[in-house]
Amino acid sequence: MSVAAPIVWKNQKLELLDQRLLPQQEVMVVCETLEGAHDAIRDMIVRGAPCIGFTALYGLSLWLKAQSKFSIEDLKKAATFLKGARPTAVNLMYEVDRVVKLVEKKFTSADDIKKVFEFVLADAHLQMELSQSKNTKMAELALKDLTELYGDRPLTLMTHCNTGFLACGTLGTALGVISYAHSKKRVQMVYADETRPYMQGSRLTAYELGKEGIPYQLVVEGAASYLFSHHKVDAIFVGADRIAANGDTANKVGTSTLAIVAHHYKVPFYVVAPLSSFDFSTPSGKEIEIELRHESEILSYQGKSVAPAGARALNPSFDVTDSRFISGIICENGLVKNPNLESMKVLQRGSH
Amino acid sequence: MSVAAPIVWKNQKLELLDQRLLPQQEVMVVCETLEGAHDAIRDMIVRGAPCIGFTALYGLSLWLKAQSKFSIEDLKKAATFLKGARPTAVNLMYEVDRVVKLVEKKFTSADDIKKVFEFVLADAHLQMELSQSKNTKMAELALKDLTELYGDRPLTLMTHCNTGFLACGTLGTALGVISYAHSKKRVQMVYADETRPYMQGSRLTAYELGKEGIPYQLVVEGAASYLFSHHKVDAIFVGADRIAANGDTANKVGTSTLAIVAHHYKVPFYVVAPLSSFDFSTPSGKEIEIELRHESEILSYQGKSVAPAGARALNPSFDVTDSRFISGIICENGLVKNPNLESMKVLQRGSH
Repeated sequence: MSVAAPIVWKNQKLELLDQRLLPQQEVMVVCETLEGAHDAIRDMIVRGAPCIGFTALYGLSLWLKAQSKFSIEDLKKAATFLKGARPTAVNLMYEVDRVVKLVEKKFTSADDIKKVFEFVLADAHLQMELSQSKNTKMAELALKDLTELYGDRPLTLMTHCNTGFLACGTLGTALGVISYAHSKKRVQMVYADETRPYMQGSRLTAYELGKEGIPYQLVVEGAASYLFSHHKVDAIFVGADRIAANGDTANKVGTSTLAIVAHHYKVPFYVVAPLSSFDFSTPSGKEIEIELRHESEILSYQGKSVAPAGARALNPSFDVTDSRFISGIICENGLVKNPNLESMKVLQRGSH
Repeated sequence: MSVAAPIVWKNQKLELLDQRLLPQQEVMVVCETLEGAHDAIRDMIVRGAPCIGFTALYGLSLWLKAQSKFSIEDLKKAATFLKGARPTAVNLMYEVDRVVKLVEKKFTSADDIKKVFEFVLADAHLQMELSQSKNTKMAELALKDLTELYGDRPLTLMTHCNTGFLACGTLGTALGVISYAHSKKRVQMVYADETRPYMQGSRLTAYELGKEGIPYQLVVEGAASYLFSHHKVDAIFVGADRIAANGDTANKVGTSTLAIVAHHYKVPFYVVAPLSSFDFSTPSGKEIEIELRHESEILSYQGKSVAPAGARALNPSFDVTDSRFISGIICENGLVKNPNLESMKVLQRGSH
């Protein structure tokens, strides 16, 4: 059994795993047009910053395939349309703008549209390959550090939210470390936070761990203190939505709460993210604004009301973990222990 | 609008609010027999340690009412049957054993059964009255302390799980403090943890706060760090299932996690519980065993599966909060700041 691939280019079409139906059903949705890719992003058939970026690149490929001649103005219109699918998804903007800039530099209206299509499609494939090699590099760095800490014994690891194959289309970041460690027979047990309110842990991380045959138990987020006082957890791995210059890290709500409790119990806490998540222009987490999402995510479940009529909720989507609670930050350029403004600088080499 | 009373003696019958249907429906279940009371406890129509205790006393009253002559042996059989309804509910055992002992001391088989019935019924009423006066005393102590800290301005308070009128049949403990402070116009906002996995916060505390017209917002437990870093929370109040001699406190899972995060952000954290929850024979929280509940509470919601087939979960029902994270413990005998083995002794006067 393996995890269904969340994103596949096949027979000149884009196939996406409908992640809204997981873990109960594995349904592939076929996108044949730009509009199809747009709607799949908007409707959250596909999720996870890397997967959204790849879907956008394949979506532009689908659009180029359907054109009879190349016009950069029309491509820009298609790009703008695509970026509207999830206006707050930074990676979507980044990937679309990046490839449009490349195309603008390389092609003129005299060029064959087929060549432009092939270029963008090859770029999409390339980005996925690069992601895979970066993820693998990060996992190797993490396991090397764990081996320095604990020798080569099997480990009990913990994660929050979903940062694996389903989110990345490749090995993954934090969950990628766990999958990689499992492939080296170094995982004894994984604890996964259910990750309220959207249940990415129960629905997606549990699905991936189960498919890979990795022993795991789900826990509610309130159980962190119980868990660390009653069970030995060797390390926690989480992803990042944005990392400030001093190492403060914005990630799915609950991350900072978990990090504070882990720090109290002296459980090593690692952030794993590609350099594209680093924002060296933001000095610290204080400058990161937190998106508030709709109250209904907390007040109801699968359309059924949980709370009384008229109930109110406060639903922050992310939180910021203070870098002093982070034992290490890992990206494709290396691992920084005890991250701060000074120590983080080493990761910038050749990246900006 | 007021909260429906969870437990009422009316027309010689016991009426219980079916708390399983809250907050969507308010249905009163009428118990006319010992068996009816037993089943209501077993099936969790009634919940909360105090309410379970009162239901047991009224259940014995119903049984005595139906007897033609008094036999202490038969009463003990009825008591044993009743105690089997929830074998881990300490308060159920305590109240049943206490009243049976009183009856055994006071009556013989020569006595009129009607007198025994009236005695036990009066005891049930008395226990509820005593609970109300203890709860009020605790709320007064809490509000006095808050006033010393903050003057008489309106406060932003937080609570976990459900410890109000629905659990106690009287004012309540931690939520009782909030209701009482609201009655003195001292509450500006309440944050309530949804309290995974059983959702006592979303279902019950939100119901009580809404009925009383107290402004509140539900939060997921992972949001604690976000909440304390972005909003001023003046104090947190929680209940207790068992308090050790040094002040370490066993309470609903999530309490200890919340206390550690609150301590980091310097938010005062209070435990409110009657002396019957204190166990001076247990030196510290290390000796308190934590009940593990069924995995299904985490893996499904309202009968619908959340996680993949075959998923596993670790479901501790309680956790233990280290007394050094507790700013104050409040019972009917007083308030102890910075609880420890020494400072806690003052609460024992006249109680054991």
